[in-house]
Amino acid sequence: MEMGNTTPSHNNAVILMHCPDQPGIIAVITEFINTNGGNILYLDQYVDRVNGIFYMRVEWDLEKFIIPKEKINDYFFTLYAQRYNMVYRLSFTDRPQRMALFVSKMSHCLYDILARYTAGDWEVEIPLIVSNHPDLAHVGEQFGIPFEVIPVNRDNKAEMEAREFELLERYGIDFIVLARYMQVLSEEFINRYPNRIINIHHSFLPAFVGAKPYHAAYERGVKLIGATSHYVTTELDAGPIIEQDIVRITHKDTVANLVHKGRDLEKIVLSRAVEKHIQRKILTYKNKTIVFS
Amino acid sequence: MEMGNTTPSHNNAVILMHCPDQPGIIAVITEFINTNGGNILYLDQYVDRVNGIFYMRVEWDLEKFIIPKEKINDYFFTLYAQRYNMVYRLSFTDRPQRMALFVSKMSHCLYDILARYTAGDWEVEIPLIVSNHPDLAHVGEQFGIPFEVIPVNRDNKAEMEAREFELLERYGIDFIVLARYMQVLSEEFINRYPNRIINIHHSFLPAFVGAKPYHAAYERGVKLIGATSHYVTTELDAGPIIEQDIVRITHKDTVANLVHKGRDLEKIVLSRAVEKHIQRKILTYKNKTIVFS
Amino acid sequence: MEMGNTTPSHNNAVILMHCPDQPGIIAVITEFINTNGGNILYLDQYVDRVNGIFYMRVEWDLEKFIIPKEKINDYFFTLYAQRYNMVYRLSFTDRPQRMALFVSKMSHCLYDILARYTAGDWEVEIPLIVSNHPDLAHVGEQFGIPFEVIPVNRDNKAEMEAREFELLERYGIDFIVLARYMQVLSEEFINRYPNRIINIHHSFLPAFVGAKPYHAAYERGVKLIGATSHYVTTELDAGPIIEQDIVRITHKDTVANLVHKGRDLEKIVLSRAVEKHIQRKILTYKNKTIVFS
Amino acid sequence: MEMGNTTPSHNNAVILMHCPDQPGIIAVITEFINTNGGNILYLDQYVDRVNGIFYMRVEWDLEKFIIPKEKINDYFFTLYAQRYNMVYRLSFTDRPQRMALFVSKMSHCLYDILARYTAGDWEVEIPLIVSNHPDLAHVGEQFGIPFEVIPVNRDNKAEMEAREFELLERYGIDFIVLARYMQVLSEEFINRYPNRIINIHHSFLPAFVGAKPYHAAYERGVKLIGATSHYVTTELDAGPIIEQDIVRITHKDTVANLVHKGRDLEKIVLSRAVEKHIQRKILTYKNKTIVFS
Repeated sequence: MEMGNTTPSHNNAVILMHCPDQPGIIAVITEFINTNGGNILYLDQYVDRVNGIFYMRVEWDLEKFIIPKEKINDYFFTLYAQRYNMVYRLSFTDRPQRMALFVSKMSHCLYDILARYTAGDWEVEIPLIVSNHPDLAHVGEQFGIPFEVIPVNRDNKAEMEAREFELLERYGIDFIVLARYMQVLSEEFINRYPNRIINIHHSFLPAFVGAKPYHAAYERGVKLIGATSHYVTTELDAGPIIEQDIVRITHKDTVANLVHKGRDLEKIVLSRAVEKHIQRKILTYKNKTIVFS
Repeated sequence: MEMGNTTPSHNNAVILMHCPDQPGIIAVITEFINTNGGNILYLDQYVDRVNGIFYMRVEWDLEKFIIPKEKINDYFFTLYAQRYNMVYRLSFTDRPQRMALFVSKMSHCLYDILARYTAGDWEVEIPLIVSNHPDLAHVGEQFGIPFEVIPVNRDNKAEMEAREFELLERYGIDFIVLARYMQVLSEEFINRYPNRIINIHHSFLPAFVGAKPYHAAYERGVKLIGATSHYVTTELDAGPIIEQDIVRITHKDTVANLVHKGRDLEKIVLSRAVEKHIQRKILTYKNKTIVFS
Repeated sequence: MEMGNTTPSHNNAVILMHCPDQPGIIAVITEFINTNGGNILYLDQYVDRVNGIFYMRVEWDLEKFIIPKEKINDYFFTLYAQRYNMVYRLSFTDRPQRMALFVSKMSHCLYDILARYTAGDWEVEIPLIVSNHPDLAHVGEQFGIPFEVIPVNRDNKAEMEAREFELLERYGIDFIVLARYMQVLSEEFINRYPNRIINIHHSFLPAFVGAKPYHAAYERGVKLIGATSHYVTTELDAGPIIEQDIVRITHKDTVANLVHKGRDLEKIVLSRAVEKHIQRKILTYKNKTIVFS
Repeated sequence: MEMGNTTPSHNNAVILMHCPDQPGIIAVITEFINTNGGNILYLDQYVDRVNGIFYMRVEWDLEKFIIPKEKINDYFFTLYAQRYNMVYRLSFTDRPQRMALFVSKMSHCLYDILARYTAGDWEVEIPLIVSNHPDLAHVGEQFGIPFEVIPVNRDNKAEMEAREFELLERYGIDFIVLARYMQVLSEEFINRYPNRIINIHHSFLPAFVGAKPYHAAYERGVKLIGATSHYVTTELDAGPIIEQDIVRITHKDTVANLVHKGRDLEKIVLSRAVEKHIQRKILTYKNKTIVFS
């Protein structure tokens, strides 16, 4: 069985950038692309006028672009990035990104992601699942994806994470999705993958940070429960928020019901965030995200 | 101009109650009403099986009810409330409740409530608006409702609240709605009106308790903003939640936009809560609400 | 690998009923259960005062119920159903219902249902998947569920449906879920399973009945797209609606985007409906549903 | 009492435009503004790649713009509009647009709009309310706005509309909001104000076109009701949709409840559409809207 969307990808370049705002930036960049034979397929920009920051995402077809792919970065850096004090990321769509899934015992987010992957909805490769428990090994088997059990806990974290780093290296992983993974990563781990670890937290952050948010929501008597996907930073549940959503509950809902109702929320909110990341549509700045449409 | 829904109200009795759960409670109460000639118009009940509590709201037509209205409470207390350890509230719909509005400088919640009132949507009387500022006096004038300016602040709170108590007394006020009233009430005030002061807080509680929640939401980079209506208790923004809702925002929204978008949320969420209170459909238990449909 | 929730189910009785409204029905039925030793676990009722119909769902534990399970129906019919002109359905929770999935080429609803099933979220058995195409046979294999290809089309419908009837019989199927099954069932088929075939239609019915609703939504320029799950009746897309939901779109969304965004909606809306059906919480009356909470 | 936001408006120019897509359009237009001393405050664009159309909204500060305000149109037309086959609208923000409200007997949309207006939320003038009934005359009085009763019906439509045209002329009306106005406008009327008459229809269009949509929704047994604001065209309820939203209902809701719940939906959906129109953020193309954020 052939997994994922492995059709030869389009040969596009994507630039995600931000810089101090000043007149004419869009004009010069679009002209750079147009005059060199690039066909702009997507352009979205946004000016944060409060802080004076210009943000842009531009994607263009490289087929008739006269600057060789391997030199685009040089040209762009020399001509524009320096001049405008840009922070930018250039990437190409001809190679799907490689994503690792970290899971524990709950399967709903894992299945949701693998169902999309198998159906070819996402331009991504998923060569690796890591878990601190063996419980979901059968899912790896069902989808033909290596499932590595690394029984990490508080006491053996450094040693176990060393094994994880080795795996992530070996499988050429670009980014990591914590699909209801119930272990806190070390600072070292987090710093290795800045803005490249996506977590799903089962509350409407910043409400109910930390463990057992559904219990806390039940105790407080809220009328809506939420889920939040965010990039992982070294402060717990405090990284840049990518996506949030909520579902209505009533006084009739027990904690067990909240857990049950929350599952659909968690999987959808996580998958929306992962999709935006795969599409290279997320910029982060000062612990917030700009998510292009 | 005649304000509010002053058509002769229906002559119904409403009981809101809770007690330790045990078999047969619905049967005995419905039988009590039926055999005495009452026509049940509404019955909703709910059993909290986690804590073993039975909650019920029942409303019946008194027209052919053979127990005189003024004796219903005696009968009910003697026959059922004692026997089942009930906490209950009996009320009658032939007299509209009287509601006071407390406001400061923002008019959106005030107008929303008065528009419903004027249209006759609610069985309520609004004989009084109180404000700590004169800014919205013209709204009182527009709708022909006494608008009393009581310039309360931290230093004169006891004295000013004494004037408020006098007003509330004089106008026969049953419950109070804080329609974006920007003053904290004293404990004494709150304890005079238990479960009878409804506030609107402009965040998805318990996120962003206290002042300037839109600024806090902007800083945190959330993707949804919320509003929460709740009964006021002596702990700030921590009373029983009646209703919450959210609206989606994006990275493009400044604090000013959040304030702007939040207004519609605040007014709708507050009015939904006030409506449920007017309809006597809210029970509170252990800092939570049971809101009947 | 053991699939589904096959733990010995609870030994409860469930009655779903409606009848002309009259005083005392709740009392007599709850008394019937209580005095015979049944412990009521769930009771919800609703009176349609416009049409004068009383609806109820009651579930009770049979453990200490003194009427033998096989005689409950007799007793209930004789004592109450006749007397109150009830239409009712009595069922027992000790045997999970058996559900067949009908699919075509799209996998998102299928995976969503099987993920819940595998995780043990639902008290149901799924012994059979039927498809008019072989494309999703690998999913049956992944989950160890027989996948029968019945290449039905307009010309061979009677013959192919005969084979389907035989399969449904052989596997002891109680109800059928059309998980994006792209074939219209015959009247004969539909009449065999009244209120027991659940479909998902990819629009906010009654808007965009029939084929290609996303194209129609795009053409009309709507700002929200919807999905609707309903029981199948002989009139296309016109059966009793069980659940609906929507998602916001913008002018930027192409038809392909609508199809993509709609998938999450379809799978969630279908699964919510299936869950309510499994829980025996749906009553139908005059082409509408009463869905208990 | 001073009504509306009459502070001296900002001195900006706004261009809304669409044209066949081709490379370089953003660059030339932003350069035109920048090199002539304009400070771009807002730029949003969108390419419909299916149909090959480029859409843009750009707003810039005229303070240091060296082309005189009255010549901007000439320059823009000569230099760009002709060359790129643009359809465009140039407007200036120093003069608030003038809006007329048409109402019948229901006040909720009217109050909602006037509350925003009085609070200064919108840069607009509302010098005129027209109604086919006298019922809401007191609202005009409350807000100090001329309220003209024009008792139009099927038989006197031409004559009455002539009076309306005269009023619209006399008050210098730019656009019209039908705030639950229960009369169909003539073709002549509609053609006088293309894309300048905003209606609110109390259903999720295209479901339940025409009269009594809540009754139809009740009959069909939907689980959500909606509201739709759209520009009025000569085909009933079929004009370009600006905004839609929904609210969840249940089997418990009678038609009266739907009407009641729908009111909040109607007023919010209408006001959102009116706000976008006031902000000049709506483009129409082939019976659809592009609504900029």
